[in-house]
Amino acid sequence: MAKKNAFYAQSGGVTAVINASACGVIEACRKHRDRIGKVYAGRNGIIGALTEDLIDTSKESARAIAALRHTPGGAFGSCRYKLKSLEENRAEYERLIEVFEAHNIGYFFYNGGGDSADTCLKVSQLAEKMGYPIQAIHVPKTVDNDLPITDNCPGFGSVAKYIAVSTREATLDVASMAKTSTKVFVLEVMGRHAGWIAAAGGMASGPDLELPIVILFPEVRFDQDRFLAKVDDMVRRHGYCSVVVSEGLRWPDGRFVSDQGTRDAFGHAQLGGAAPVIAGMIKEGLGLKYHWAVADYLQRAARHIASRTDVEQAYAVGKAAVEMALAGKNSVMPAIVRKSSKPYRWTIGEAPLKKVANREKMMPKGFITRDGFGITAKCREYLEPLMRGEDYPPYRNGLPRYVRLKNVAVPRKLPPFELK
Amino acid sequence: MAKKNAFYAQSGGVTAVINASACGVIEACRKHRDRIGKVYAGRNGIIGALTEDLIDTSKESARAIAALRHTPGGAFGSCRYKLKSLEENRAEYERLIEVFEAHNIGYFFYNGGGDSADTCLKVSQLAEKMGYPIQAIHVPKTVDNDLPITDNCPGFGSVAKYIAVSTREATLDVASMAKTSTKVFVLEVMGRHAGWIAAAGGMASGPDLELPIVILFPEVRFDQDRFLAKVDDMVRRHGYCSVVVSEGLRWPDGRFVSDQGTRDAFGHAQLGGAAPVIAGMIKEGLGLKYHWAVADYLQRAARHIASRTDVEQAYAVGKAAVEMALAGKNSVMPAIVRKSSKPYRWTIGEAPLKKVANREKMMPKGFITRDGFGITAKCREYLEPLMRGEDYPPYRNGLPRYVRLKNVAVPRKLPPFELK
Repeated sequence: MAKKNAFYAQSGGVTAVINASACGVIEACRKHRDRIGKVYAGRNGIIGALTEDLIDTSKESARAIAALRHTPGGAFGSCRYKLKSLEENRAEYERLIEVFEAHNIGYFFYNGGGDSADTCLKVSQLAEKMGYPIQAIHVPKTVDNDLPITDNCPGFGSVAKYIAVSTREATLDVASMAKTSTKVFVLEVMGRHAGWIAAAGGMASGPDLELPIVILFPEVRFDQDRFLAKVDDMVRRHGYCSVVVSEGLRWPDGRFVSDQGTRDAFGHAQLGGAAPVIAGMIKEGLGLKYHWAVADYLQRAARHIASRTDVEQAYAVGKAAVEMALAGKNSVMPAIVRKSSKPYRWTIGEAPLKKVANREKMMPKGFITRDGFGITAKCREYLEPLMRGEDYPPYRNGLPRYVRLKNVAVPRKLPPFELK
Repeated sequence: MAKKNAFYAQSGGVTAVINASACGVIEACRKHRDRIGKVYAGRNGIIGALTEDLIDTSKESARAIAALRHTPGGAFGSCRYKLKSLEENRAEYERLIEVFEAHNIGYFFYNGGGDSADTCLKVSQLAEKMGYPIQAIHVPKTVDNDLPITDNCPGFGSVAKYIAVSTREATLDVASMAKTSTKVFVLEVMGRHAGWIAAAGGMASGPDLELPIVILFPEVRFDQDRFLAKVDDMVRRHGYCSVVVSEGLRWPDGRFVSDQGTRDAFGHAQLGGAAPVIAGMIKEGLGLKYHWAVADYLQRAARHIASRTDVEQAYAVGKAAVEMALAGKNSVMPAIVRKSSKPYRWTIGEAPLKKVANREKMMPKGFITRDGFGITAKCREYLEPLMRGEDYPPYRNGLPRYVRLKNVAVPRKLPPFELK
């Protein structure tokens, strides 16, 4: 039986450690050269498969592949491209199979969140119907931490660490300025639907260094009066405080707080940001001097302060995906299983894609304090090990040495395909 | 002759390494117990001296003082409080001398930027007129890097490193998303008058990893058409780019670009930010998808990614200030002298405060490229060694172990003093 090649693609928003998963996949495949041929990567994710724009990763040195482990972003490019349902666009799925067949691909590793788990499942189902043998394994990734079954998602731990460290640092800054200047610091963080990342801001304060932090979760409808009373109380007691606000914070009627309907001098709609809106309320309502920051991509790209746990798990799910494929598995995802929190012990389990696709895991209610502005001890116990450990990239002349791959194209064999 | 005590205070916006200077001052004083008594710190900067709210640093362990070297923010509190001229408010200067006399203070170490150098000078002059012997030494600090004579200012190198690293990381992120999503990432950085921090964004791209970066300096009047043409060209050639914009960017008529006269739905003035304004132009003018971030305090508090050069220099100027005082100097500031760039060699020199106070050092014209959007080789040669080296704080359970001092108050001896 001829050896089959593998296909790997990155999907959706990238993270500080998605390349660590790529590294895990490619290094594991290289260890099994007897059974797996080349690893082809999709240029810009699944679009690369649809347009037959494949990257030959065998052209990369072992050293370059190893450097993926400490390089943020998506080394082969990612994309926001959700395949429609089989009924709506069967042609796209058939095209995928056609490309896989043309390049003798028998393993499909898809690295992404909920949408890509769904795509992975459909590819597997259609291939079976069409009689084309392929093993489709989903590799979990999302800073949103919202995949089911897996205890946590690779990518989240590093964002959590970044937000906790940054909030701790900025809160020490505002503490020193509060007497005559800034009294409230507002930091906007990602997480449109779930407050996992906002929760990490609460970890800035801990038993070793207590700091006044107010969290605004997307799960808790915003009550401006209660919020201002909380900030006022914090500032009266401590002299200052920090507010960590999720970009997904909503008014009771469901509108995003960041969407203020603002217009500039020319009448153009003004681009939002929840942080400046919250800062404005603090000024108007309490008359306190504020500063605000929006972390945006900085938080999910911050490989320089990645969590070691996260890097190890990102690598492990990539490696496990290959091992599952070699064990004959199909339509599954390696999942992180927490065996204990203290001490933290984890292993890799197996989740059927049918149970992963299109399901979101929200923050448990017991993770948010009763007043809605903080995290509970249970939440701390969950978050702490995910942020633990440092895994610094190598530096040269003051800057991290991130790798850029050659990304050599595989010659095309098929006629072009038009994306819808 | 009785031993004199020392007074130390932090002034203005704090930095990731101002406490390293405090550490240098206090450790050096402790090494000279034969000649220097206690080190008293001003609670919340010079206000602590005016209100006789002094902190007895002798109550802190050697270990706590050593931990200042890796703790961001201002450990004793800082303030934005500029003493008026001697003519306008002689009472304040006389009060300072009175407090110094009451607590047997013979050494005045003032850690700040241009304003505090001026205060330091005046204290020295008045003390001399009043016949009270005090040695006033200014310890340089400012992320703005705008003090004269010294080659660079402690605090700047770490901000520069943070901005360069963050821009590199976020640009790798946008590079991977550009095919179907975000094509331009906009990062707003500090620097209201001088573009030193914005310039550091240019260091994200280097010979080892070339990245398309457009810089908007406060020194270059903003030309919207030329800027959009530049971004358009970058995106056509590379598929994406990052824009690093200084908060101090101005229109040709002098107005800040961040001040758009925006109003929210209720007619309230909307709080600015240059980044969202620039992002809006990119959307309106070029139709490109963008993301934007505002680093704000995160950049100057980011001790986790401090430059080792910066930490060493911050400590060195603190230590040198004490040595200068012991050598009988007065009205001076330890200055960083660059002996060579390649290899980087520096030493501590001595700058008379008369030449430091109230003078701003702007970026040399030869540091900005002719098109106004980038940095020159000369600028790189200047910046690179200042960002070099890492100096990680210790971590526990995923978070940096920053110290909080006990800050025990010295008993008051004088009647209260009303601040104007």
